[in-house]
Amino acid sequence: MDTPQGRPPRKGPLDGITVLDFSRVLAGPYCTMVLADLGARVIKIERIATGDDTRAFGPFVDQESAYFMCFNRGKESIALDIKSPRDRDLLERMLSQADVLVENFRPGVMDRLGYGAERLARTHPHLVYASISGFGHTGPFSDLPGYDMVVQAMGGIMSLTGWPDAAPARVGTSFGDLSAALFAAVGIISSLYKRTRDAQGTRVDIGMLDCQAALMETALARYDVEGKVPTRTGDCHPSLAPFETFAGQDGRFVIAAGNDQLFMLMADALGSPELALDRRFISNDLRCRNRPALVQAIEAITRNAPIAHWIERLNEVGVPCAPINTIDRLFDHPQLQARNMIVQVEGAARRAIRTAGNPIKLSAFADIDGATPLRAPALDEHRESILAELMSGTGDYAPAAELADELASQDVNALWNQPAV
Amino acid sequence: MDTPQGRPPRKGPLDGITVLDFSRVLAGPYCTMVLADLGARVIKIERIATGDDTRAFGPFVDQESAYFMCFNRGKESIALDIKSPRDRDLLERMLSQADVLVENFRPGVMDRLGYGAERLARTHPHLVYASISGFGHTGPFSDLPGYDMVVQAMGGIMSLTGWPDAAPARVGTSFGDLSAALFAAVGIISSLYKRTRDAQGTRVDIGMLDCQAALMETALARYDVEGKVPTRTGDCHPSLAPFETFAGQDGRFVIAAGNDQLFMLMADALGSPELALDRRFISNDLRCRNRPALVQAIEAITRNAPIAHWIERLNEVGVPCAPINTIDRLFDHPQLQARNMIVQVEGAARRAIRTAGNPIKLSAFADIDGATPLRAPALDEHRESILAELMSGTGDYAPAAELADELASQDVNALWNQPAV
Repeated sequence: MDTPQGRPPRKGPLDGITVLDFSRVLAGPYCTMVLADLGARVIKIERIATGDDTRAFGPFVDQESAYFMCFNRGKESIALDIKSPRDRDLLERMLSQADVLVENFRPGVMDRLGYGAERLARTHPHLVYASISGFGHTGPFSDLPGYDMVVQAMGGIMSLTGWPDAAPARVGTSFGDLSAALFAAVGIISSLYKRTRDAQGTRVDIGMLDCQAALMETALARYDVEGKVPTRTGDCHPSLAPFETFAGQDGRFVIAAGNDQLFMLMADALGSPELALDRRFISNDLRCRNRPALVQAIEAITRNAPIAHWIERLNEVGVPCAPINTIDRLFDHPQLQARNMIVQVEGAARRAIRTAGNPIKLSAFADIDGATPLRAPALDEHRESILAELMSGTGDYAPAAELADELASQDVNALWNQPAV
Repeated sequence: MDTPQGRPPRKGPLDGITVLDFSRVLAGPYCTMVLADLGARVIKIERIATGDDTRAFGPFVDQESAYFMCFNRGKESIALDIKSPRDRDLLERMLSQADVLVENFRPGVMDRLGYGAERLARTHPHLVYASISGFGHTGPFSDLPGYDMVVQAMGGIMSLTGWPDAAPARVGTSFGDLSAALFAAVGIISSLYKRTRDAQGTRVDIGMLDCQAALMETALARYDVEGKVPTRTGDCHPSLAPFETFAGQDGRFVIAAGNDQLFMLMADALGSPELALDRRFISNDLRCRNRPALVQAIEAITRNAPIAHWIERLNEVGVPCAPINTIDRLFDHPQLQARNMIVQVEGAARRAIRTAGNPIKLSAFADIDGATPLRAPALDEHRESILAELMSGTGDYAPAAELADELASQDVNALWNQPAV
């Protein structure tokens, strides 16, 4: 589609790509945010009156959802009455000019709405059609609801997160949704790449549970080889020491000195070179076996000065270390600032919030910087410009009449309007 | 490059793409595994004698590292003596025919080896050059070592993970490495897409800390809007209830009933419809405020029967729920099995281990299934076939003579051979 008047030109590797985004809440919108950050034009297809569920999620600034603003920057919005022939017509026209469709309904819903992957593969063979769901569109669990919390539990990560003597903890961010969003982006963009060769779209089917399993690192292999069930290790690396948090005078911080050389440098930086000569600690293997004694010996030193002191000394000699930053400390972090990782997003009311920027830094394109706020769309904000564009265009418009009978027998509105959470 | 004899043809959207992979350990190799799973040819460039550091990481099967096998399936290997003119010559020839280079050395190392992004942008303008490092190649922290543990602490996720009354926990998988790997894959493939239009490569610069910030979900915005520092919530969603783990007769499991309708269905499924009428629990807001009482009321019921009983009843009425699976329970999981998510990888000794498959399911390509083991390469296994191919080819070979002086003054071997951890 052409650039409508007033939409700021975005530059990135996906420039020229149009994404119709039927997704709601988190996994889908995060995926399409990544695509938008890379230059794609993303048009949110929302239900009328309420739109994306997260428009009603707090916190709010001037009655606008900061949650919504976080994941919908740089997108356009059109609200559709999915039962109205006029809006279905409009959607057909948009589909005929789109490159990618993203949805995260429960499997089957898009089919019943008339926009299932099989139908569109027939009528719009160029379309890359991506679905993100809890369990994917095949297999015995495909009909079950799969929230982040559910796949974190089912996929194994909770069994590995937290302290061994306490109950399993969830990862403190929606790892299930966000990792599925990233795998979906990889699937979509690689399908666009393929399409440059054969002009054919692809169906991308991402299950959140699958993505959890794919991120278990060596845990599956360790069980397969050793027969021991991997478990929670609190804050430490299971097979490197010291590689965990230690108490400073004013809180806890990380030292990650996983080999003998770094351990010697660490001992020097702490002012106790004799630590490196202690027979209990002369190899990583011994340090792992004597971990409680090692932690005690290190903390006997580190408790006597503030974290900043130790971080400075350890950095001087190149020993990996870090404070455990709380979220408030990210905003003015010199590295995140230097990397344009704190950006602003504003809604219709023009009140800006701060959130994280785009971590994909490409030499060919200017970064999204923190100075000019990105815009999250008001519901239906872009209807007029999209309509004007479609009406003036010469797109290969395919009428949706063939679907009329099928749809008359279903409560399409109920499906379209059901909440995601 | 052409397919050498003996390499099984892999089909995927990145078919025809050749990746030279200088990376070691986890973030880089995971990224190139994703590319290989999508059909790219990935050639590991390893140091002689020892190769990728993880070849020495346990657990081992028949003296081969299962750790290495996990992340290097489907790749080729060539070991280079980086100081030998013959091998540098060979590398130049390989570069002239490659599409992508991936490396995860500390910033500056590739420059000093003679293969920095600036030089290659000049001599090999078609190359997509991707670096993954702790903090990226710009900014005041770029020289610091950035392991997973370091960026988990610095980027905020540890402050959000674990129980509020205990010390911060790390995410039980290397979230810092793996998320950087996925953002890198997105950056690389979108740059390949862009290259189809302008025939120009791009520099991709991924910092693990940036990626951590990008995955903090709404935490930054919540602090910015509300001024309260987000903290750890153990196993529960911060603003939905019930959305956490509960004690069953034989362990803990998740119920995620985040709206009133699901809460009513849950109460019915637990055989206590009166729960939904309790004035303390009639809205999500009230349920969040009365969370301890809610948990107690639910556990008074769930403690009386095994988890499998409750999962079955909750699934019947569509209430999201899940057992907290340990890793051993993933292997025979019916959904993971149905989705080809458990695959086999074997090393040179042909002993196979089981690990997770490719979660990106594309209709245009056959899935990697669990029946035929994928292969992780022995060190230098593909030298002969790569040599034969290059010598027979007509690649636009660019001699490396211009680098000779520069290199003579440096201890290139020491750089090349330094361990990653």
